[in-house]
Amino acid sequence: MDDIEIETVAEPALRDPALVEGLPGVGHVGKLAAEHLLEEFDSELVARVYADEFPPQVGIDDDGVASLACAEFHAVDAGERDLLVLTGDHQAQSHSGHYHITDSFLDVAESFDVGEVYALGGVPTGELVDEPDVLGAVADADEIEALEDAGVEFREGEPAGGIVGVSGLLLGLGGRRGLPAACLMGETSGYLVDPSSAQAVLEVLEEVVGFEVGYDSLEERAEEMKEVAEKIQEMQSQQQGMPTDDDLRYIG
Amino acid sequence: MDDIEIETVAEPALRDPALVEGLPGVGHVGKLAAEHLLEEFDSELVARVYADEFPPQVGIDDDGVASLACAEFHAVDAGERDLLVLTGDHQAQSHSGHYHITDSFLDVAESFDVGEVYALGGVPTGELVDEPDVLGAVADADEIEALEDAGVEFREGEPAGGIVGVSGLLLGLGGRRGLPAACLMGETSGYLVDPSSAQAVLEVLEEVVGFEVGYDSLEERAEEMKEVAEKIQEMQSQQQGMPTDDDLRYIG
Amino acid sequence: MDDIEIETVAEPALRDPALVEGLPGVGHVGKLAAEHLLEEFDSELVARVYADEFPPQVGIDDDGVASLACAEFHAVDAGERDLLVLTGDHQAQSHSGHYHITDSFLDVAESFDVGEVYALGGVPTGELVDEPDVLGAVADADEIEALEDAGVEFREGEPAGGIVGVSGLLLGLGGRRGLPAACLMGETSGYLVDPSSAQAVLEVLEEVVGFEVGYDSLEERAEEMKEVAEKIQEMQSQQQGMPTDDDLRYIG
Amino acid sequence: MDDIEIETVAEPALRDPALVEGLPGVGHVGKLAAEHLLEEFDSELVARVYADEFPPQVGIDDDGVASLACAEFHAVDAGERDLLVLTGDHQAQSHSGHYHITDSFLDVAESFDVGEVYALGGVPTGELVDEPDVLGAVADADEIEALEDAGVEFREGEPAGGIVGVSGLLLGLGGRRGLPAACLMGETSGYLVDPSSAQAVLEVLEEVVGFEVGYDSLEERAEEMKEVAEKIQEMQSQQQGMPTDDDLRYIG
Repeated sequence: MDDIEIETVAEPALRDPALVEGLPGVGHVGKLAAEHLLEEFDSELVARVYADEFPPQVGIDDDGVASLACAEFHAVDAGERDLLVLTGDHQAQSHSGHYHITDSFLDVAESFDVGEVYALGGVPTGELVDEPDVLGAVADADEIEALEDAGVEFREGEPAGGIVGVSGLLLGLGGRRGLPAACLMGETSGYLVDPSSAQAVLEVLEEVVGFEVGYDSLEERAEEMKEVAEKIQEMQSQQQGMPTDDDLRYIG
Repeated sequence: MDDIEIETVAEPALRDPALVEGLPGVGHVGKLAAEHLLEEFDSELVARVYADEFPPQVGIDDDGVASLACAEFHAVDAGERDLLVLTGDHQAQSHSGHYHITDSFLDVAESFDVGEVYALGGVPTGELVDEPDVLGAVADADEIEALEDAGVEFREGEPAGGIVGVSGLLLGLGGRRGLPAACLMGETSGYLVDPSSAQAVLEVLEEVVGFEVGYDSLEERAEEMKEVAEKIQEMQSQQQGMPTDDDLRYIG
Repeated sequence: MDDIEIETVAEPALRDPALVEGLPGVGHVGKLAAEHLLEEFDSELVARVYADEFPPQVGIDDDGVASLACAEFHAVDAGERDLLVLTGDHQAQSHSGHYHITDSFLDVAESFDVGEVYALGGVPTGELVDEPDVLGAVADADEIEALEDAGVEFREGEPAGGIVGVSGLLLGLGGRRGLPAACLMGETSGYLVDPSSAQAVLEVLEEVVGFEVGYDSLEERAEEMKEVAEKIQEMQSQQQGMPTDDDLRYIG
Repeated sequence: MDDIEIETVAEPALRDPALVEGLPGVGHVGKLAAEHLLEEFDSELVARVYADEFPPQVGIDDDGVASLACAEFHAVDAGERDLLVLTGDHQAQSHSGHYHITDSFLDVAESFDVGEVYALGGVPTGELVDEPDVLGAVADADEIEALEDAGVEFREGEPAGGIVGVSGLLLGLGGRRGLPAACLMGETSGYLVDPSSAQAVLEVLEEVVGFEVGYDSLEERAEEMKEVAEKIQEMQSQQQGMPTDDDLRYIG
């Protein structure tokens, strides 16, 4: 296997496609949003990216069949336009690795004639948020107006410390390739997977990109998470400590 | 020395060979199993793999002669078929390193016309197990039936977290090369080297691959380990703490 | 993006230019000094260096526009001569990375016919210093006299442990390329950003390189820092602990 | 600068040269021994090795002149034969880095027609040793006899855990190049730099290689270290704690 290997599975011609990235991150907001799109629309796996930058492991499905760590691209029929949705279970394991795999992701996107890039994620507020706002960052100032019209908030000094990882590099490297690129970040506590933050981000994306999607399953999960959050607040008032990442996965 | 260097020592033609991997891991199950095959059958060293991915060290034998960290391939006459047995004392020292050395291992296997791959290891249960089951994972669903017939258990959700390291990558990368590949994992506590788990795994391998081997030496070691385990349980009821890796090596 | 990518933005012919490096370091002395030159003189961005050695992130400006982590070179009209000023927000993330990016910085410097190199920084004394001296180190003994005449102190055994990072490598690698190179280090506590140490270093640089600059803004900041330092000394006499890096950034 | 760069300073023809390695390690035994040879005999700097594997830093001499981290080779006139002595202040900073720089060291050795390799070091015993033995390890069993005749001890199971770092790799990689190679390790506490262990190692080397050297300066230092060791034993009986690496450097 090459250090980074792109496996092309299908090569459909996509209609004015936008890249939508939802890799694991804060509150799993981007991941939930991207996976929701794959559940709600017809989609087709078009490419996988393998890399020595991913953890050296295989996942095992319910039948016992192994699959090598990878990122996946699905072509999604979203009505008027197509989306190229990027999902996965892993981030790169080294700093320089993030640069290399993001370059590959953009290569795949360009091979499908993607015209704009949306990186979805969460921005941690440190506390539970009832009605999460969606904050934004862009590769080029031209993109701000349309996003503000769709409800995205651009707040001076936020996100503090910039944006780290693939989402940030999609803006930085995408911008350097001349691709319009934006990062949409739903406010979230940072402690739990957050389906209502994922929904807030998707509602913005619907308007900006031009598609319509239902939210029943995300709303159900949001209700469940509300109950979990209440239980955790009880736990906390009894003892010290935040839920760990393991708790978060178990809960999610 | 190249970053990864394959040293071919002999090039016998092997009869319908299967690769059997037993590098260090949980409970040293795979390592014990592979080393048992080398003790019980006639074998011949055919190749070594050196790599800057291995720890920068030499081992010293009882006479004071040094040998560079490496993995070894032995051709084993197992009766009806030959086995290509992969052993060693070290795993790669970096995440990406696991990918690179596993690719080399598969290159060596293919150079000997290996037709199927078996990665042997342990799955930690957290407690001493009297009659260890052997769990399985495969590169392709086709392989499941024959393994279940040989007594392998495929349990949904196990192993939790997938399979990490060379064993997992032999499935992932072997599968991508079109090689049938399976991981056989004996249940083990995770605290001690486990000869009876190694025996359970070999009993499955015997049936799946088609050979016969005796178990006297492994059964002796299993008896010794039983006594050690009892001593440790006494120690534990007196004080805090699990045996450390150093204890485990001393015991093993 | 290549592993290290030099983006040439403009190619003015510079008059007997000297490279002046001010990347983040102890007390941000070099950074403050370099940024002061960019504020006080006319300057023009001439090159950026991107690298997978920098943290995988984008900074976001006040409007929400992202920019990829990079180092920047500005051509500065300093009167009689031009300066090529190197600034940035990040250092390399790996040991070998420092070598690679410093080589690139010297490549850029040589492409602009730079004839001498000045690395600016701080040397931590562990306590607040009223009138900071400027210590020196050079690539070649020939350079010492002129620097001593300008007030630089060469003290045996200082800096203890040599000079680590880009500043040190500019001396080591610059020297090996035959470039006169010197490191000017203002004494500083190491706890706070230090505008008066930056001023001390610039006063030496003025004399050695041959330019004149005003210090009003740095003197104002030094006054502010004095008040902050007094508050911190009060805090310390009440409780344990030095300000953290986060405090330092907030204060700075 | 290339990732590893060999700078040839002089190219004298050496008489039946042996490589003698003394890089920093346990008790600085090898380093002291190698530096003693450079003090006692006529020597000439013949090569330097720079590498991005070394720490990214410059050392500063007493005049303030910087020099890039490197390893040095000196040709030493030891009477009947010449020695090629390898010294330095740093080890590689990464595991794979040790392989790469040791390969370069062997390249330099072979360019000077070195016929045998001696890696000098210490083996930690955990306690102060009055009359240190010299333990040995070899690349090939043929070498054992001559070393035993010179007083080297080959003890089964020692050194425990093999030999890590450049010394071990000189045996492993040197052996694979067909070079006779031996590691001579003086017993030492591991807490202090140990001039008498260095002397014990040199006394063996004298006999094996065929030269004669005086030991006055090492014996003086050994006396000083004895006093220091006594003071530390007093300190220890008063309080908790071993001297730190900083103490060790201060003491050494």
